[in-house]
Amino acid sequence: MTGPVDTARGAVVPLGPNEVALAGGVLGHWQRRTRATTIPHGIRMLERDGALDNVRRLVGRSDAPFRGMVFQDSDIGKTLEAVAWELGRRDDPELRRFYDETVALLEEAQEDDGYLDSAFQRADRVQERWSDLTAGHELYVAGHLIQAAIAARRAIGDDRLLGVALRLADLIVTRFGAADSGAVDGHPEIEYALVELFRLTGRQEYLDLARAFIDRRGHGWLGSAHFGSGYLQDDVPVRDTTVLRGHAVRAIYLAAGATDVAIETGDAELLAVMRAQWADLLSRRSYITGGAGSRHRDESFGDAYELPPDRAYAETCAGIALLHWAWRMLLATGEAGFGDAFETALYNVVAAGVSDDGEHFFYSNPLQLRADHIAGQEEATARRRDWYACACCPPNLMRTFASIESYLAVARDGGVGIVNYAPARISLDTPAGRAALEIETAYPADGAVRIRVTAGAGGPLALRFPGWAAGAELRVDGAAREVAPVDGWLVVEEGLRAGTVVELTLPMSAEVVAAHPRADAIRGTVAVRRGPVVYCLEQTDNAGDVEAMSVDPTAAPEPTGDATELGPLLRATGTVRSGDADAPLYAPYAVRGAGAPAALRLRPYATWGNGAPGAMRVWIPTS
Amino acid sequence: MTGPVDTARGAVVPLGPNEVALAGGVLGHWQRRTRATTIPHGIRMLERDGALDNVRRLVGRSDAPFRGMVFQDSDIGKTLEAVAWELGRRDDPELRRFYDETVALLEEAQEDDGYLDSAFQRADRVQERWSDLTAGHELYVAGHLIQAAIAARRAIGDDRLLGVALRLADLIVTRFGAADSGAVDGHPEIEYALVELFRLTGRQEYLDLARAFIDRRGHGWLGSAHFGSGYLQDDVPVRDTTVLRGHAVRAIYLAAGATDVAIETGDAELLAVMRAQWADLLSRRSYITGGAGSRHRDESFGDAYELPPDRAYAETCAGIALLHWAWRMLLATGEAGFGDAFETALYNVVAAGVSDDGEHFFYSNPLQLRADHIAGQEEATARRRDWYACACCPPNLMRTFASIESYLAVARDGGVGIVNYAPARISLDTPAGRAALEIETAYPADGAVRIRVTAGAGGPLALRFPGWAAGAELRVDGAAREVAPVDGWLVVEEGLRAGTVVELTLPMSAEVVAAHPRADAIRGTVAVRRGPVVYCLEQTDNAGDVEAMSVDPTAAPEPTGDATELGPLLRATGTVRSGDADAPLYAPYAVRGAGAPAALRLRPYATWGNGAPGAMRVWIPTS
Repeated sequence: MTGPVDTARGAVVPLGPNEVALAGGVLGHWQRRTRATTIPHGIRMLERDGALDNVRRLVGRSDAPFRGMVFQDSDIGKTLEAVAWELGRRDDPELRRFYDETVALLEEAQEDDGYLDSAFQRADRVQERWSDLTAGHELYVAGHLIQAAIAARRAIGDDRLLGVALRLADLIVTRFGAADSGAVDGHPEIEYALVELFRLTGRQEYLDLARAFIDRRGHGWLGSAHFGSGYLQDDVPVRDTTVLRGHAVRAIYLAAGATDVAIETGDAELLAVMRAQWADLLSRRSYITGGAGSRHRDESFGDAYELPPDRAYAETCAGIALLHWAWRMLLATGEAGFGDAFETALYNVVAAGVSDDGEHFFYSNPLQLRADHIAGQEEATARRRDWYACACCPPNLMRTFASIESYLAVARDGGVGIVNYAPARISLDTPAGRAALEIETAYPADGAVRIRVTAGAGGPLALRFPGWAAGAELRVDGAAREVAPVDGWLVVEEGLRAGTVVELTLPMSAEVVAAHPRADAIRGTVAVRRGPVVYCLEQTDNAGDVEAMSVDPTAAPEPTGDATELGPLLRATGTVRSGDADAPLYAPYAVRGAGAPAALRLRPYATWGNGAPGAMRVWIPTS
Repeated sequence: MTGPVDTARGAVVPLGPNEVALAGGVLGHWQRRTRATTIPHGIRMLERDGALDNVRRLVGRSDAPFRGMVFQDSDIGKTLEAVAWELGRRDDPELRRFYDETVALLEEAQEDDGYLDSAFQRADRVQERWSDLTAGHELYVAGHLIQAAIAARRAIGDDRLLGVALRLADLIVTRFGAADSGAVDGHPEIEYALVELFRLTGRQEYLDLARAFIDRRGHGWLGSAHFGSGYLQDDVPVRDTTVLRGHAVRAIYLAAGATDVAIETGDAELLAVMRAQWADLLSRRSYITGGAGSRHRDESFGDAYELPPDRAYAETCAGIALLHWAWRMLLATGEAGFGDAFETALYNVVAAGVSDDGEHFFYSNPLQLRADHIAGQEEATARRRDWYACACCPPNLMRTFASIESYLAVARDGGVGIVNYAPARISLDTPAGRAALEIETAYPADGAVRIRVTAGAGGPLALRFPGWAAGAELRVDGAAREVAPVDGWLVVEEGLRAGTVVELTLPMSAEVVAAHPRADAIRGTVAVRRGPVVYCLEQTDNAGDVEAMSVDPTAAPEPTGDATELGPLLRATGTVRSGDADAPLYAPYAVRGAGAPAALRLRPYATWGNGAPGAMRVWIPTS
């Protein structure tokens, strides 16, 4: 049983859920919550909002009108993928029934030629099939179905959904595979679905079409649509730009797909382009939370350093897309540094997407919310919503947490590399034979990671060294080792020997962080980060008006006695202004008074919005 | 001949173009440029983009397909209004031919029942008349036609267009005047057009319907549409909110209409509400340039203090709307302070809307543009465009400059009040008989204003005292007077006596301005203002990288030898950073080095974008 990405052509090889099992911890908690709460809730929402009825009516089992977005079927695909991973871990009669009934429904609804998309199969459709790749999302929907089918094959060995997916994929190859076709989809996603289908089946035509979808892009084939061809990443060929632009989810899905193509085709030139795009993203266009997408208008990236905290779009799906891309870059290059961005996104923007109760979701993830915030659509206020008209994010969270153990570790250099630290058991075949490890840690709440090798005859054990972790300590069987990362790894040669105990202690003191001087929207502010966890100042934790608070950037925040699963609440020192309400909007420059001393209580950003609604901010003015 | 607003029911009475004539200066220049260049250009654009053909095809004189926005007719209305004001000032065969032909065309195209809107009259229309007030803009289009007809009646005494407008207005009264109707238009504008038609005709039903449109609003009659009912100001009744919200142009047009209703009905309660909305706008939600509308997504106001300079929408039309509202508030209250906002908008956001050559326009007016800016639609980059698919702004500029002398002065308290300083001749009847004044000034480039009374037998001469003008000096016949403003006026009692010379000297030293501490997006920056003119740092004037510059906020900028019609270029002292490209996006907080000393050259914001394209910013980081 392999995971969502199964390739041996990168520099390192991912371990799947057959090789890694979570043993509690925050990731284990999120995975259990997903199974127990989020997935059942999501299935209810698929019923409530008509996604399942949209398919049932095709086979005469519903007379409800078509409801929802043109890409409503993709919610089913993503939910099926999550259910498949969960069934692979452990059977469950309710989940099994949903899976069986839904697969049977899709089998029945699929056309003889393989076509399947309820928005275009309905008798009262407004557009013909394949007539509007710019906005129709048919290949996007197909991509999610393919990924679900791959999960079902890998997790539970079921071939029925795969049969549906293969018939659809073959139709797509027939329809769009011709060398002279310029077709691409307005919403990338099919690209990496096809690469994975190639990985599963070995059928070259899927890889060829994925590569074609990458290389055709950038010539304006999709037209300019509402927001221009840049919005659709169709203005400049993928290989000709170093800048992600347009709709952020589209852009990062495309980048992940291009990276997958580079891995499977050994295309070093394409990989170099993706590396440059990655560097631009991380150094100029991403939020400290791992969020991406600075503009609400077209859900897009903006200029370099355009990173408004209040108007951050930072869609949950863009955070998930970043996980996908970071993971593929790590596989392609073998460099552990890509795991830093993975964990930043995971523990901040992605984790923020879902509530403590598992049944409420953020779509956009701003880094600041004012108490009097005037919210648009797809924008929760200080509370998450139970679902969205455009419901892409909730089922995307489901499939992410349901398969999260597949992103913990890789096989590398004859041994194993630990990318994300979580309590887990790992067992894998190495050139030196079977190896097994047990990882104990309360990371990221605590920085101590203890790895005990329970089986093994040698081979290197490598640990990702986070870029923020200066001062980390490494011990092997109690003896200190030099901390000297290579390609982001701390390597314990021959560490995979039964009985070896490796202890990594990551420094988890809170750090005050400032942004680049061109990051205009957050000038004069700082954020607080503890390990990979970004903190925020939320009104519910503070008696004073958090919108009038400033923080002393030279004093490191200290833990309070209160804790969350991501770490303690922190106490920072600062000041609180008075008289804001009467101050003029613009006035002659004068050095302002400092305000009254104040203690600021900070909490992990991902946990905000679960208490009393109120103002929140990640970037806090300096006093 | 009276101007666009003709009421004697406010606290003061506007003077029209029959009473005020510009005599050069920057306003005179803009008015002449409008006549010579912008209007002829606009007429060519009405031809090029199909606005005129849309009407011609109704009467069989064009077989071109309908083109443009559903509200394309409004471009004709606004252009006709501008042409009417210009013809009133001086005849011109080209303008006269356009006026005559277009009015004849509209007369011919109008239905027997008075209906006129080419988007809904066309045989291939997609919607029935009055079926979609939310998005159809029929009453908005009607409002602009009515205003054009009023201008034509007042400026050139022509009743043909007024006949068209009255037939249309009467149809609207019949259709929507019933007491039990809840109808309002998705885009306010009809409200103040109907009030003005009442002022012209004395017919009560127009005022009644205008008042009804104000009072019906806020009950969700329009539905939620794409951006919600707040976008349409239909979520909360006008009288129940102190906050402008939603689409900024809609919101301010509505506020101007409500203020007009308050004036004509003597509704003190409604006026108090408008005063509260005004105070919120000016103290929390407007740009230093007089721009309004902080969000691109729905062209809307945002939260209090949400004022991003780079993503400022600040549509040119919203700036013009602010002129309309400020003027009506000044008329209603008699308080000169509303003139401060008028001149701020006029000399900054409105003036920026048009290029030096008069043929290129900004739609949105950001206060910052990065060199690598990724622009959306309706967003010029560093260059204005020759027209827009949604062409509301250019003809709005035309009618504004064509009637700008109507906003210079008012009759008040038996005398005259000068609101906006410009070289002009004023003559009016006062209780003490005919009075005449000559104003000499190079304002705002220079702060000296010299008013010579050439005829008159007494009565007060009042001068608006700008809020920024601490240190101003006032002399009457050479003798210094105390500067003690009352309701924003410096009053020279009995000043309207032939031979009197009043000299006002406004301090025109550059001032460094800071924003409210909650204005997050401009924290740690200052702007430079000289009188009413806001300055900006533009790349074309500077050798160093303006995106790496900071300014010393404690040193007042000094004039350079170079000048614009709005004032000299200024020189500020500051620093310029190096190494931006290599700096990390996020890093542990540290006090940064100051950078190398640099001289910054600043120019009036309204004049930017006429030289070599490059970065620009109003708010400059402090060093």
